[in-house]
Amino acid sequence: MGGRVARQERAVRTRKAILDAAGEVFAEHGYAGATIYDVYNRCGVTKGAFYFHFASKVELAQAVLDEQVSGQIGYLEVPPGERTVKLQEVFDMGLLVAHRLTFDRMLQGSIRLAVDQVHELNRRIPYQAWIDAHLRILTEADERGELLPDVDIPDAAQMIVGAFSGVQLMSEVMSDRSDLEERIAVLYRGLARVIATSETYEQLDLTTDRGKRLMARSEQEQAAAE
Amino acid sequence: MGGRVARQERAVRTRKAILDAAGEVFAEHGYAGATIYDVYNRCGVTKGAFYFHFASKVELAQAVLDEQVSGQIGYLEVPPGERTVKLQEVFDMGLLVAHRLTFDRMLQGSIRLAVDQVHELNRRIPYQAWIDAHLRILTEADERGELLPDVDIPDAAQMIVGAFSGVQLMSEVMSDRSDLEERIAVLYRGLARVIATSETYEQLDLTTDRGKRLMARSEQEQAAAE
Repeated sequence: MGGRVARQERAVRTRKAILDAAGEVFAEHGYAGATIYDVYNRCGVTKGAFYFHFASKVELAQAVLDEQVSGQIGYLEVPPGERTVKLQEVFDMGLLVAHRLTFDRMLQGSIRLAVDQVHELNRRIPYQAWIDAHLRILTEADERGELLPDVDIPDAAQMIVGAFSGVQLMSEVMSDRSDLEERIAVLYRGLARVIATSETYEQLDLTTDRGKRLMARSEQEQAAAE
Repeated sequence: MGGRVARQERAVRTRKAILDAAGEVFAEHGYAGATIYDVYNRCGVTKGAFYFHFASKVELAQAVLDEQVSGQIGYLEVPPGERTVKLQEVFDMGLLVAHRLTFDRMLQGSIRLAVDQVHELNRRIPYQAWIDAHLRILTEADERGELLPDVDIPDAAQMIVGAFSGVQLMSEVMSDRSDLEERIAVLYRGLARVIATSETYEQLDLTTDRGKRLMARSEQEQAAAE
């Protein structure tokens, strides 16, 4: 196997190995504390191979930041799960991300880069992508009559995304994320009451272990598809 | 004036000048990017005088972080203002902080140190102080019958503080804080509906310019007291 296809496959694998290592290194050390050496050393890639894929630390960090939006794991996609109302999708996205944040090092690194004030990076990309995903689902939920009549959808989308960011940040500071899923469920039960009709509210599942159950479901579906 | 009192006054002034400069430097460069040289150079203090007051960058940063809690400006104190309900105090604290965040460099530096993942610092201190201040007011509001019967006060306190942190963070990223006061007012109008009885809700002032008006009031009262 020395052909073009084999080389391309190897390049894809190397790029993924570098990104995974970068997620871990940024999660542990932040942007300022991370070095390119840490990253290629961790994944056993040569310096030359590293620079073939990424020209600089900024470029590497932006790629980790963008994994939230366009990475292999579709964090912004609505996970499979049973739903009786459209609005459930907004909260399912967040509850699954909260669950994944307790163990997914790439996501932890990406979120850390979005929270830390790193002016070299375009941190608007992930926030805007999260806001857009919320806007889309909220608009559909509204068309189905699930939202209270006085809800301003752009305000609601920004409120949910902003509040999520802070609650996960505070959970990281106060409990090393051990209470993250509970804190996000409490937040969502509050915010749902502000935007959902009471009929819709009653059909929402905003329990603390919803994210974990969605994760198990996703894994089952992936296994079945393979 | 070469006596002990004069020396003490000079020391207090120098410490304050260093702290103010440190607030600015941490606001601009974050913990990792800031140097002690930046700080003493900015306020025109000698290196020797600096080290008389602060032994290290960590000690200086912790002092800036703690300014939120125990600094000269009582960010956690309820600002003067007209209120018909106790619950207004919770939102007045946050609305005034949101207003101050648009120009107060010390507060910007302190909040940046609380948000950035700087493991050398004890970032729990300011979050816990904010949660405690919220708990105290919410408990009193509850005793006056202002809260809905199903409100869990510790959950509500953590939700409000966490959500505030994230909404201000997102406003910094997305608009350089130009929409901060509006975003916080939107959040508070939402959260108030989750915790307040409808009679209490109707008496709350959660308009975007409330923080600015509270600031003017504070300044008037200070001027009158001098």
